[in-house]
Amino acid sequence: MATADRWLLPDGIDEILPPQAAKLEQLRRDLLDLYKSWGYEQVFPPLVEYLESLLTGAGNDLALQTFKLTDQLTGRLMGVRADMTTQVARIDAHTLNREGVTRLCYAGHVLHAKPESLAASRSLIQIGAEIYGHGGIASDIEVIGLMLETLRRGGCCELHLDLGHVAIYRALAAEAGLSGDLEWQLFEIFQRKAVPELEAFLAKQVSDPDLAVMLRQLVTLAGDRSVLAKAASVLAKAPQAVQSALADLEQIADQLVASYPDVKLYFDLGELRGYHYHTGPVFSAYVPDMGQAIANGGRYDHIGEVFGRARPATGFSTDLAALVRRVTSSVASKKIFAPVAGSVADQASLQEAVQQLRASGQVVIQSLGAGQTAQSQGCDQQLSLSSSGWVAVAVSDS
Amino acid sequence: MATADRWLLPDGIDEILPPQAAKLEQLRRDLLDLYKSWGYEQVFPPLVEYLESLLTGAGNDLALQTFKLTDQLTGRLMGVRADMTTQVARIDAHTLNREGVTRLCYAGHVLHAKPESLAASRSLIQIGAEIYGHGGIASDIEVIGLMLETLRRGGCCELHLDLGHVAIYRALAAEAGLSGDLEWQLFEIFQRKAVPELEAFLAKQVSDPDLAVMLRQLVTLAGDRSVLAKAASVLAKAPQAVQSALADLEQIADQLVASYPDVKLYFDLGELRGYHYHTGPVFSAYVPDMGQAIANGGRYDHIGEVFGRARPATGFSTDLAALVRRVTSSVASKKIFAPVAGSVADQASLQEAVQQLRASGQVVIQSLGAGQTAQSQGCDQQLSLSSSGWVAVAVSDS
Repeated sequence: MATADRWLLPDGIDEILPPQAAKLEQLRRDLLDLYKSWGYEQVFPPLVEYLESLLTGAGNDLALQTFKLTDQLTGRLMGVRADMTTQVARIDAHTLNREGVTRLCYAGHVLHAKPESLAASRSLIQIGAEIYGHGGIASDIEVIGLMLETLRRGGCCELHLDLGHVAIYRALAAEAGLSGDLEWQLFEIFQRKAVPELEAFLAKQVSDPDLAVMLRQLVTLAGDRSVLAKAASVLAKAPQAVQSALADLEQIADQLVASYPDVKLYFDLGELRGYHYHTGPVFSAYVPDMGQAIANGGRYDHIGEVFGRARPATGFSTDLAALVRRVTSSVASKKIFAPVAGSVADQASLQEAVQQLRASGQVVIQSLGAGQTAQSQGCDQQLSLSSSGWVAVAVSDS
Repeated sequence: MATADRWLLPDGIDEILPPQAAKLEQLRRDLLDLYKSWGYEQVFPPLVEYLESLLTGAGNDLALQTFKLTDQLTGRLMGVRADMTTQVARIDAHTLNREGVTRLCYAGHVLHAKPESLAASRSLIQIGAEIYGHGGIASDIEVIGLMLETLRRGGCCELHLDLGHVAIYRALAAEAGLSGDLEWQLFEIFQRKAVPELEAFLAKQVSDPDLAVMLRQLVTLAGDRSVLAKAASVLAKAPQAVQSALADLEQIADQLVASYPDVKLYFDLGELRGYHYHTGPVFSAYVPDMGQAIANGGRYDHIGEVFGRARPATGFSTDLAALVRRVTSSVASKKIFAPVAGSVADQASLQEAVQQLRASGQVVIQSLGAGQTAQSQGCDQQLSLSSSGWVAVAVSDS
């Protein structure tokens, strides 16, 4: 194997180098500071956990995406986190175990065994925020707002927001009295939005004609805000849970239009992303030049249950590594070169000057001896001994 | 399995929760800013790599400590990083491929398959800095200085610094002409400092009496600075490489005494920590109440070679998660509660006040509706509508 090939990274596994790394670090800090200012407390979930706690309640997709390891101390299976959401839910429900509303945020590497799409990364830097202990839409609105602020800081403009509500499908499927297997079949048809298959399924499995019509219509209820009015009429005979879900979406839309008038809203009532996980409003943000969502989230009220405590929850996350590619501003990198001083006394005063400059946030590169120059170290200034002590002077290119 | 047991984390795998997480985040930023001010550029190495690139040149210890994964896309073995040093060396030698001196720093999770000692963590947050492309002791002195500054920021006082130089043992073993197996045997005896075994080995395998005496003495050359003078006399007949190594240690000691007079120096010339990896000065920092080193590092000049380019290198690292436990100051957490306003107009002005406070770095928690109070949200202040607009007022405990 040639040397160059041997050190190639695995497909979809990325490293982040200067100057991109400095931008990433800056965006990471900006976003965590943003979350902090909204009252979200940071947590650092572990890189690996036993599979049970990592995958519980999260559904099959995550299990396929999770790298497994055998713990050599116990022989039990562990997983490398592929999503930090369930970890943070466990921390809220089981570890912190607080009463009332808890706001948590996090940032860190996650690893996917398989890429989500052909060109997708397998080493994401997931950053996100979650609210636990509040079941109303006020918390959904808060996390959607925080997601939109996050994307703005990440340099996203022309944002499109997709809104859905998995309770609509859930309530209709429950009303149809479908067994687990049949419900799963219907769910898969919905995911593919395969209308002929859907019609065949409904004809065979759903005897109530009103319900069949509503499920047939649901798959077409996608578009701008007029979809909500259309849904109110099409789903007029649906159970109460469906009416509440539609009212929720109306309220969320009202608030978002008021607070974020420049964000384009799109509604997709048959959208079931993360269905086995989510229980209420779900949302995804898109930018024009990217096929996949740049951030997404939703309500997942039952996840705390398996960790010993049922807690309503809603939150969002995004991939910092993808987001930072959109940041066009670069981090300034002025550097000052400190030469080797001519005498011991000058060396002492030079060290003092260097310390002061560094403490004030300046970058000072210390010469390591003969042959090193400001130019060879990429510095645009150099410390020079004047009558008033060491001062930084511009390096002439000559 | 009881619920409480089921969600236990694996032994030595830790999560970091509030308020400790806020301290960790602060220390992480302080240290990365420190490294930046010294001219070190941050990199984010990948969480996993193919085993060849992760373990090359790093020796057997790291192989045992590295969790292995099969890449489902290629069937090749990958490892979860157990040490970021070789990753950063690969980045310098192969990826960045710059001429001249390169300074790099990093911070991130690493995972150990087995704990280094009974109570040791297996999920460390490694932070460190490396200089590539400079072979003189000026770079060793710089990284030792940066390591000591790191520990000071981490709240370590009463620092002890152990200094060694693996070139001394290397040169003597080479002079003795020992084969690979025998040299490995001698190395193991040195690691255990097993004097009777050493004497038996030397009597049998080393025919040159001067060399046997020097190797016998080397294991006892440990203590304060007087050790260097003693070594100069005991090792007077040793090869030139040994004399250079002793001169290096003298110079390093002079500089450290001048710059860090409060750090206690200890010399151990038979110390071979990371021997198969290091090539020159090695150093470990200790604090009185901790048996293991809190930070360590050293020179490893040949590591770039396997990545296609021989580059001198020296650097250090520490575990941020261990270091932050020593930080006694806590991060202030004043919080302001924003109630739901009485009218739409008041709500708009409230939102503006909240945005301004958050932008100025204040933490403002927005009420999610009925039943929420400043107290229930842990806030010590609350926004209140006065004639001059919304102002933060102290929350009375009554």
